[in-house]
Amino acid sequence: MEVPDIAEIDINPVIAAPDGSLLAVDALVVVGEKPVDQERIPPVDPRTIHSLFYPRSVAFVGASGHIGKWGYMLLSNTISGNYKGDIYLVNPKGGTIAGRPVYRSVGEIPGVVDLAIVTIPAKGVMNLIPQFKEKGITNMLLITSGFGETGKEGRALEKELVESARKAGIFILGPNTMGICNPHIDFHCIGAPVRPLAGSTAVVAQSGNLGVQLLAFAEEQAIGVRGFCGSGNEAMITIEDYIEGFEEDTLTETVMLYVESVKNGRRFFESARRLGRKKPIVLLKGGQSAVGNRAASSHTGALASDSRIFDAACRQAGIVKVNQPMELLHLTAAFSSLPLPRGNRVAIMTLGGGWGVITADLCAKFGLDVPELSDEIRESIDKILPPYWSRSNPIDIVGEYDTAIPLKVMNELLKWDGCDAVINLGIHGRRIFINRHVAAIKVADPTFPQDQLDGVRKMFADFERNYIEEIARLMDAYKKPIVGVSLLSDEENQTVYPVSGCRYKSVFFQSPEQAVRACGKMYEYYCFFNC
Amino acid sequence: MEVPDIAEIDINPVIAAPDGSLLAVDALVVVGEKPVDQERIPPVDPRTIHSLFYPRSVAFVGASGHIGKWGYMLLSNTISGNYKGDIYLVNPKGGTIAGRPVYRSVGEIPGVVDLAIVTIPAKGVMNLIPQFKEKGITNMLLITSGFGETGKEGRALEKELVESARKAGIFILGPNTMGICNPHIDFHCIGAPVRPLAGSTAVVAQSGNLGVQLLAFAEEQAIGVRGFCGSGNEAMITIEDYIEGFEEDTLTETVMLYVESVKNGRRFFESARRLGRKKPIVLLKGGQSAVGNRAASSHTGALASDSRIFDAACRQAGIVKVNQPMELLHLTAAFSSLPLPRGNRVAIMTLGGGWGVITADLCAKFGLDVPELSDEIRESIDKILPPYWSRSNPIDIVGEYDTAIPLKVMNELLKWDGCDAVINLGIHGRRIFINRHVAAIKVADPTFPQDQLDGVRKMFADFERNYIEEIARLMDAYKKPIVGVSLLSDEENQTVYPVSGCRYKSVFFQSPEQAVRACGKMYEYYCFFNC
Repeated sequence: MEVPDIAEIDINPVIAAPDGSLLAVDALVVVGEKPVDQERIPPVDPRTIHSLFYPRSVAFVGASGHIGKWGYMLLSNTISGNYKGDIYLVNPKGGTIAGRPVYRSVGEIPGVVDLAIVTIPAKGVMNLIPQFKEKGITNMLLITSGFGETGKEGRALEKELVESARKAGIFILGPNTMGICNPHIDFHCIGAPVRPLAGSTAVVAQSGNLGVQLLAFAEEQAIGVRGFCGSGNEAMITIEDYIEGFEEDTLTETVMLYVESVKNGRRFFESARRLGRKKPIVLLKGGQSAVGNRAASSHTGALASDSRIFDAACRQAGIVKVNQPMELLHLTAAFSSLPLPRGNRVAIMTLGGGWGVITADLCAKFGLDVPELSDEIRESIDKILPPYWSRSNPIDIVGEYDTAIPLKVMNELLKWDGCDAVINLGIHGRRIFINRHVAAIKVADPTFPQDQLDGVRKMFADFERNYIEEIARLMDAYKKPIVGVSLLSDEENQTVYPVSGCRYKSVFFQSPEQAVRACGKMYEYYCFFNC
Repeated sequence: MEVPDIAEIDINPVIAAPDGSLLAVDALVVVGEKPVDQERIPPVDPRTIHSLFYPRSVAFVGASGHIGKWGYMLLSNTISGNYKGDIYLVNPKGGTIAGRPVYRSVGEIPGVVDLAIVTIPAKGVMNLIPQFKEKGITNMLLITSGFGETGKEGRALEKELVESARKAGIFILGPNTMGICNPHIDFHCIGAPVRPLAGSTAVVAQSGNLGVQLLAFAEEQAIGVRGFCGSGNEAMITIEDYIEGFEEDTLTETVMLYVESVKNGRRFFESARRLGRKKPIVLLKGGQSAVGNRAASSHTGALASDSRIFDAACRQAGIVKVNQPMELLHLTAAFSSLPLPRGNRVAIMTLGGGWGVITADLCAKFGLDVPELSDEIRESIDKILPPYWSRSNPIDIVGEYDTAIPLKVMNELLKWDGCDAVINLGIHGRRIFINRHVAAIKVADPTFPQDQLDGVRKMFADFERNYIEEIARLMDAYKKPIVGVSLLSDEENQTVYPVSGCRYKSVFFQSPEQAVRACGKMYEYYCFFNC
């Protein structure tokens, strides 16, 4: 494959390692076919980015009443999501959809339109520009595909559209996008029925379906979302613009990116490094292999980059790069909920020995230390646990049913200046164990007093609620992360538990590897900017 | 740390790579404190292993009526699990528990006892041996802890017990174990309320809590279990014995092991290599790091081994080694459900481009090829998909709502002799997407005809049921694995779907990385014995 273009990025000079790997880069080499019309895209003002996520009124241009059409999916999601702004529907056929009047053209809309959501076929979009200009619409969410991603003709059409929009003072988000959402104003304008909670994680994905799956999981795991956008072909608004927008945005605390290509490497990494210092950026790169590149190129028409160079640039910018989609979520859950560990020393508190072993192994793998207990801390725990406890880190709290034990031990560990983080396993989720146990007893032993069973269930349900709250309070007090793993999970389980009045949130993962990896990556991030 | 002992394993001579890593081993070096009393444990006849899992009657020695006691947990699980054999309860206090008579001693039990489940304190266990001998009980499941895992005194007690049991012709499973289960006879004698389905995966864990979590996940994901045992301290019955038992057992098709240490390295690897040729062994090793070793040693009192040597020996024996607990389940789901890929060429069929990109990247990472489509296959798919399809592998089936498309494309891909496996993403799980979409429409558009909504829901529900069944039939016909990833998941989702009348089962993972890793590891396993 030829290397037809070198974008102008020079964060640092190249340092090649003896094995030929790159330790630093001065160029983001773009591989693949060079599109004829590629040119620099001017930066977009962060206020414009903000305005896209805060429309006071929207118009669906290409509104449809047919299930299976984008023009129906988007409006039904927006309406059912409880969006409070005015909603206008536009379709030359007129009539009504969802009991609302349909305007035959944009010009007929009686009120002001902050954002137009366009789903009409590609060839008709150009004609909208003068109509939007006349109506004073400056923001367009262009869902329609059939532009730059389809080849030469599509690229020409996209270029023409962009030039025309720019002259008319219109910003286009897209084309070829899944939509946007801002849960903080109940605005769920995406082509998929997902409803993440309002929160502090900003999400941009250069792939609609991946973005939607991430949002669906975020919803399930209660990871709060500040806003989402599928950035599509990025004809006018690029991932660099979003990054600069998030830097200014006070509600954004963590950023989750799925990136296939970057149009302006220098700007991307410079902005990311600046933003990353304040707010962690967790990034998954698509197109890291030759075959992935081929797929990315047919997907968004984007130019994919050499992955080693991209990796090196991420490392230099302090970007937390992950290798798999689910890691994006696990790390985001951690970064958006927990204080950063200020060292790599982990205390492991476990209900059961095997988990302690596995977790210790994982710590070694992810660069974390599991220090031996000091005599002092050992003596403190001697007072809490029965004499046969492990007397070593990992601390096995040996299955005792006394619900006061876990928090007493946790307190001692947090006080201990020999540890920077506590991973706890099997204490959260015992409620489910107990519920199942009680159900088994009901079958096995109808003579067992019902009130005793109810009492046990209640005791563990109360314990767990209290445990979740106390964990958050302890993190507020000690500023050390407490990372949890659930014993069992049910449909009520989530990863993140916000606790009223607390800055930090309780986090319980499904498995030790998720917890340890999160802890390791948080320490790596902390070190990048502080060590 | 000193290296006090070298066990006698010499599968192959050592070959050291230039970087110092070991490519092959001739010794399993055991590190850590050498226990004074360690000696070879004689092999146990596979028929004895079988008999442990098939008791026709059981006695709970140490039966209790108190919630929170092992003696109650085990019997309530066994009774509620619907065990059909006779159940006897023994406790010197007599009376009744769960409405059943309690015998004051083993001698008082009126019937024959195939298996005694012992939960009395360690110091009293010795006294049971003559009683068991007199009663003719030859199998003991010794739950009680406080033996070898606690130090010198415990080891002495364990040694004494074993000698006495051996003389009396009694086999002890344990001590310090979570119990055993055999879902094929509804025998769930474990200290945790989990109920895996009956199936073909045999599970042995040298940690009770890890084993229980694995079983709970297996239950949730519908991975069928042939039998489970927490092997505990392995005083008389070792993991080597189980492996040899599984080799003979016709119901076992896949083996899942959590191992912290192996008492007889040579026998372990020789048996594993022999078994692994017929039935894949998926293994997680605890104590791979110095700190993990330390934890393992305080956990089961076991000697942990050098991890590089262990890894090398696994590679030579064809054991599928994983690094994280959840991988055990994902790989077991795949190995126990799918035909092995006979090459590394994967066709990716996806609903959405980003997923295709990510999956292609993951394939590259896990040693799988994503070959470009031949002209012939491209032309076949041209007849099925709209003109704007990707015309490349990954094949994006571009969100068309025609439910006939996925199986038509799948059929073409399986017929294609250029591919050995098909990974499909986003097609299963659309039912959930549709259900949520319909719910949104009900809120947004009360005018929408209810019968149309019902029709759409039914169409996708029917499609999905049919898709699951057809996938299994196609695998039976083509003998190529079809590995799925769900679009969204809900509480009805599971990983494995058995299909009546089919040899293979449909499998849908939650994320691309799980699917690709499973496919890659299956190919690696295939190659080990066939390439």
